[in-house]
Amino acid sequence: MSRVDPLRRCVAQLARLPGVGERTATRLAYWLLRQDPQVAAEIADALHALHASMVKCSVCCDMAVVDPCPRCADPGREADTICVVERPQDISAIERSGGWRGRFHVLGGAISPLEGVGPDALTVRELLGRAPAAREVLVATDPDVEGDATALYLAGLLKPLGVRVTRLAHGVAVGTELEYADRSSVARALENRREL
Amino acid sequence: MSRVDPLRRCVAQLARLPGVGERTATRLAYWLLRQDPQVAAEIADALHALHASMVKCSVCCDMAVVDPCPRCADPGREADTICVVERPQDISAIERSGGWRGRFHVLGGAISPLEGVGPDALTVRELLGRAPAAREVLVATDPDVEGDATALYLAGLLKPLGVRVTRLAHGVAVGTELEYADRSSVARALENRREL
Repeated sequence: MSRVDPLRRCVAQLARLPGVGERTATRLAYWLLRQDPQVAAEIADALHALHASMVKCSVCCDMAVVDPCPRCADPGREADTICVVERPQDISAIERSGGWRGRFHVLGGAISPLEGVGPDALTVRELLGRAPAAREVLVATDPDVEGDATALYLAGLLKPLGVRVTRLAHGVAVGTELEYADRSSVARALENRREL
Repeated sequence: MSRVDPLRRCVAQLARLPGVGERTATRLAYWLLRQDPQVAAEIADALHALHASMVKCSVCCDMAVVDPCPRCADPGREADTICVVERPQDISAIERSGGWRGRFHVLGGAISPLEGVGPDALTVRELLGRAPAAREVLVATDPDVEGDATALYLAGLLKPLGVRVTRLAHGVAVGTELEYADRSSVARALENRREL
């Protein structure tokens, strides 16, 4: 075939997504081919628009359409407590539990020497900039080796600033990623947060 | 927020894909946001181009950039044997086994009264148009209730035309979809195909 095959091209592009293998990508592409062309076009338009107007909030480092983001601009939230999470999706898990009235900070991952992720690859500097105005920083990184190490690392930086540093209690099952934890476990973990 | 949030829009659009829930869509969207904007743009372009130049092959009913498709136009393939599959992806499973030198026909599914899929929703008419020129039609529908029923239904239509109708042997484990069968099982199933 002299022309580029749009089906193969689509499969190859979809297979770039994390967790999507060539087989899944093939299924998706054929599924799209069977739908009205508008379906693929609408998904494509949404992908095109994704980066266009999303900005990183200069306060919490979450992605939003405005800077500062609606959460950081919300006067109804406690201004002096910051919950530090690895991923933006983790914010939803905390919010769903109903146990947190403060602000958030998106770290962008956890420190992982094995994967070459050091503090500079995360938003640690931004967090340190906010910390002096905070009364408490709750570290809600995942309960795994990287998450625990990151929590200890942050505690070492924040405590000398006179900030109370807490960690989510082990209501969240070890080995579970925060994003997938159930509501009540997250609520208990917030309730039982402990000094670091 | 007065403006449409492109992140939520992207999540909603990606969640339209089969097998992609809102959580997976959220992960994908955030992943894309962390990548170079070109990644989302390239995937979007591939989706936009998908329908533009893909046509249904008027012979085998597979999707291709030309009509007839390269497989149907290949003079190296036996012209008088047709392997009938439910999905285009199934062709790859047969091809990988190296046990088939003939042509293909994509049915577009299997007869399923429960899901309201009758013969008219499939490419049965197109198959009947090709059948008189065929010596053998091998029905490679999935080894499940719908696939078996479809095979019997096709046999009832094709045998009166004097065509030999065969079925993939039970080398393919029952309950397994053809697309996921291993190479040697598919090869054995081709070898042991039986009269219907």
